[in-house]
Amino acid sequence: MNRAFTLIEPGPVVLVVTREGDRSNIMTISWTMVLDFSPRFAITTGAWNHSFLALQHTRECVIAIPGADLLDKVVGIGTCSGVDTDKFRRFRLTPLPATQVAPPLIRECLASIECRVIDFVTQHGIVVLEAVAAHGNPARRERRMLHAVGDGSFIVDGRHLDRRVPMATKLPEGV
Amino acid sequence: MNRAFTLIEPGPVVLVVTREGDRSNIMTISWTMVLDFSPRFAITTGAWNHSFLALQHTRECVIAIPGADLLDKVVGIGTCSGVDTDKFRRFRLTPLPATQVAPPLIRECLASIECRVIDFVTQHGIVVLEAVAAHGNPARRERRMLHAVGDGSFIVDGRHLDRRVPMATKLPEGV
Repeated sequence: MNRAFTLIEPGPVVLVVTREGDRSNIMTISWTMVLDFSPRFAITTGAWNHSFLALQHTRECVIAIPGADLLDKVVGIGTCSGVDTDKFRRFRLTPLPATQVAPPLIRECLASIECRVIDFVTQHGIVVLEAVAAHGNPARRERRMLHAVGDGSFIVDGRHLDRRVPMATKLPEGV
Repeated sequence: MNRAFTLIEPGPVVLVVTREGDRSNIMTISWTMVLDFSPRFAITTGAWNHSFLALQHTRECVIAIPGADLLDKVVGIGTCSGVDTDKFRRFRLTPLPATQVAPPLIRECLASIECRVIDFVTQHGIVVLEAVAAHGNPARRERRMLHAVGDGSFIVDGRHLDRRVPMATKLPEGV
């Protein structure tokens, strides 16, 4: 859990899973931000997203991090609506039970973070989340994340560069 | 300006330039989020950053996007303080006059976005910014951005994948 923020900080496209009643839904978002090492996250969404209602009603979600191999599912999920689509079925994704929240994890993702809503900053469309559990998926071979440019193109992770020694003074212990 | 959000959305490490009196300062942050296509951005910071005081007092900043060639300057800027360091001088960066705000642009960056503070969400350490001008720097050869993982390592942009056709329904016009 003390490394969960490292899943969000690089700015990957994420899938947000909500569950209301017996229906799970998924949305694609790129507007996310780490708020704290604790970890707390912010996401931006609003009433134009069907998932926002479920977030308001249930105050729970799972943030799942897709690998680059899932790009076309990520685009598909982001361009249809849970109003009329069962996205787990349509995009052949496997829901797995979470431990602390009702929405499921996504088996095909690199990691899934179980979150509770701790605040809505309504004026700016910001939802503040607290992570309560995190699950990696070391079996995935494709470990590169996706970054949405916002113009319909995506950037895949390239090289990793290690600067842990000069950065050490700025990092929490155990990261 | 209607493409300015595409500089922030992929989640790059950014440099935030402030200016108070005759002193400019720079901080490195990775905790940023697009809020709107208008464009408005959120950043997370707080009183532990010397730059936060300048943001509070002047309500202006420049967000500059460094390319991968600037990694060691980015790390250096992030691990010293403006209290006792002139970061433009120490890291040999060139300030250029902005058009709408007092803090300077950074010539060596890929782009610089002039911003005004429109709100502080103090409870969550969030600063809400509105972009008022944006400047690209097409002369830079190294165009890959950097993404901080948060553990002291960084990811450089890899391949670009075009999904503009399927994404078209989700994008504002002119992007």
